[in-house]
Amino acid sequence: MNNLEDIVSLCKRRGFIFPGSDIYGGFAGTWDFGPLGVMLKKNLMDAWWHFFVETRDDMYGVDAAILMNPRTWDASGHTATFADPLVECKECKSRFRADKIADGITESVTTEEFLNTHTKCPVCGKENWGPIRKFNMMFTTHVGAVLPDDDAEIAAKNIAYLRPETAQGIFTNFKNVVDTIYPSIPFGIAQQGKSFRNEISPRDFILRDRECSQMEIEYFVHPDTWEENFDKMLKLNHEFLESICGLSHDKIHDYDVPAEDRAHYSKRTIDFMYEYPNGEEELMGLAYRTDFDLSNIARESGKSMEYRDKNTGETFVPHVIEPSIGVERLFLAVLSSAYVVEQVDGKDETRTVLKLPTNLAPYKFCVSPLLKNKPELVAKAREVYDLLKQKYTFVTWDDSGNIGKRYRKQDEIGTPKCVVIDFDTLEDGTVTVRDRDTTKQVRIKIEEL
Amino acid sequence: MNNLEDIVSLCKRRGFIFPGSDIYGGFAGTWDFGPLGVMLKKNLMDAWWHFFVETRDDMYGVDAAILMNPRTWDASGHTATFADPLVECKECKSRFRADKIADGITESVTTEEFLNTHTKCPVCGKENWGPIRKFNMMFTTHVGAVLPDDDAEIAAKNIAYLRPETAQGIFTNFKNVVDTIYPSIPFGIAQQGKSFRNEISPRDFILRDRECSQMEIEYFVHPDTWEENFDKMLKLNHEFLESICGLSHDKIHDYDVPAEDRAHYSKRTIDFMYEYPNGEEELMGLAYRTDFDLSNIARESGKSMEYRDKNTGETFVPHVIEPSIGVERLFLAVLSSAYVVEQVDGKDETRTVLKLPTNLAPYKFCVSPLLKNKPELVAKAREVYDLLKQKYTFVTWDDSGNIGKRYRKQDEIGTPKCVVIDFDTLEDGTVTVRDRDTTKQVRIKIEEL
Repeated sequence: MNNLEDIVSLCKRRGFIFPGSDIYGGFAGTWDFGPLGVMLKKNLMDAWWHFFVETRDDMYGVDAAILMNPRTWDASGHTATFADPLVECKECKSRFRADKIADGITESVTTEEFLNTHTKCPVCGKENWGPIRKFNMMFTTHVGAVLPDDDAEIAAKNIAYLRPETAQGIFTNFKNVVDTIYPSIPFGIAQQGKSFRNEISPRDFILRDRECSQMEIEYFVHPDTWEENFDKMLKLNHEFLESICGLSHDKIHDYDVPAEDRAHYSKRTIDFMYEYPNGEEELMGLAYRTDFDLSNIARESGKSMEYRDKNTGETFVPHVIEPSIGVERLFLAVLSSAYVVEQVDGKDETRTVLKLPTNLAPYKFCVSPLLKNKPELVAKAREVYDLLKQKYTFVTWDDSGNIGKRYRKQDEIGTPKCVVIDFDTLEDGTVTVRDRDTTKQVRIKIEEL
Repeated sequence: MNNLEDIVSLCKRRGFIFPGSDIYGGFAGTWDFGPLGVMLKKNLMDAWWHFFVETRDDMYGVDAAILMNPRTWDASGHTATFADPLVECKECKSRFRADKIADGITESVTTEEFLNTHTKCPVCGKENWGPIRKFNMMFTTHVGAVLPDDDAEIAAKNIAYLRPETAQGIFTNFKNVVDTIYPSIPFGIAQQGKSFRNEISPRDFILRDRECSQMEIEYFVHPDTWEENFDKMLKLNHEFLESICGLSHDKIHDYDVPAEDRAHYSKRTIDFMYEYPNGEEELMGLAYRTDFDLSNIARESGKSMEYRDKNTGETFVPHVIEPSIGVERLFLAVLSSAYVVEQVDGKDETRTVLKLPTNLAPYKFCVSPLLKNKPELVAKAREVYDLLKQKYTFVTWDDSGNIGKRYRKQDEIGTPKCVVIDFDTLEDGTVTVRDRDTTKQVRIKIEEL
């Protein structure tokens, strides 16, 4: 099994992911994508958008603002219930998520249940707890020129939240999309964008951060057809994860969430659990949300969320199937799935390789002169580089260290092919192409690249 | 001259841009991109990334978190100086940006200067003002489990800001990028992402909103070469705006900001002013920022921001050229540049057309059956649609209303070519292709599409 620390270390060393605000000692729960990370992240997000939106006839995109009218979160229930159980140590004043420091309890733990676990404070070691209280995880801010220090009462009316999910940016635009595009049902509205949650204890690298990018679809269906559409979305999401992202079918476990653990409005939810290096964790969720959200919005806004079928004339509030995935969770699944440490053939050493699918790899080719102090090799290599760069764009140049070191580096950033220009190239126009996964080398003509 | 209201109306009617949180009566200063808007926005952002990053050898990307360690904003000066002059009417308690309600004063107006303008309150009409005070435009939130109502003193230490610019996400990662990628100078680090500012009076559609997407490059150079690199960036940005985005050279005016109006650290700044429908406004800025930001970070973090030239061995703190553009400002420039209302040849009517460059148009083709109640035409049109969709992806289907109405609709969303299948198609395999800009129709074979 891969080690999460090794992957975190590779991410930092090679410029995939740095701790957020690294130069100032970090900022808990935030992460910055470096040059290689941006490329992989963009490849993942574009692949998802292409697969689920651009190539389909039944999907439309929206891109809603992060700051929304707070009534959004009253209607969705987030103001009342998007909360974790918080407990404070009366001795040292440290605060924790109760269900994370005690065993065998859930998010809905009561004070009595927690006290019965006889948990000691992880900071001071004492056992002297205050009551459990619900801590709302939405980040709060104030919009406009009146702040709490000016006038607390007016400021309270200017509260806004950083959205805790992208889904409500879709639901609130349902009527706008229907009124401008007139889509035939079933149809989906997709969105990619940032969401925020004030995690009490951010942890597990990018798995539980305070800021993440989500990719969500609300797929609107006739209530009678939810089951077939649920199955369609289940299949489609497996296809995306396996065929496009290269995740192994065996490492994704569909967990059919039992009724007692589902949100009250959901009639079926499947959590896609993935075997991460540090254990099984949720990669994405697929939920049948009924008409819960549209009906909430209709009630809160006083506007009808009914859809009229152009063919049958039937009028109804659509039901919703929601596939929801976090980009960072997908990023780490892809990275840890691709991360391999293996024995080098015939040598007493190992190499670290990212066996990324070619469509996701940041660079497709690396071009190098065999020796960097031979101007004729460098010039020829530049020529080949320019040719490939024009054709494939995602090409990198490397003339650092010796050729062995360059291979190791390109292995670590997942470059599928290394093209090396040597003295034979000057003679016969052939180059060495070395394969990342097999380490096999072949000689081919430049024109055949 | 185009009318801004007409463009706002088209944006809403056709699904480019809706008011944010529209269903709840909006949320001032926020806007949501609809299905067509997402496509155009993505095309603009991808075109910029492709032009400035992917096709070049000297550019690297980062994608930093929106929530950053607050020391970032102490170092950059935002905590102290990112503020607008706020004035309150003592009669009705309304608050305004002083320089926006009075003529002939600037952002640095004093209370005395403002009172001398004898401005009346736009809300109640009285003239009874409080003193001018500086209102910081950064949105404030609190991170972690202690909020102001729990313990104001501890909460004050947990303040975080929604970043007011993407630039500092680049500067704070300068050392990370140099240490992992070892780029040769000059090199640039690019970022696309959301920024926020608590505008006292958001206005002018998407030009002055509270949340916007920025595209910024910090281009790091040897101090002696700033002028040539500034000129290079100036040229490159004009090329992007004109060749890629289709903006007319005549509508972009380079305004060389005089020394007294520049930020104190900048030795040269050019504002690219664009002729928007509602007047000339800043489209983007190009600034020579010297070593101001890196030196601030070095001081605040205690870490060296020096760069060592691999060829010369010289060690120095790089200077910076910064092109910075807001996606919404570019979006509106492109939209208003493409927006044309023109006489229809030989008829007493006008048509509204978005003459977008093909690379930016949401759809490249629209496919229609001439009549929607002829199954054989619909089937053939579907065949052509599937063929084109597979080849070009960005293809739309339209069988609503009559053919004239479809052309008007496709004109309004900027689709360059409409392909119509009629009875001749069934006979000879040719289709009508109608050009958006000329409205001319030609018949060509399906294979030639």
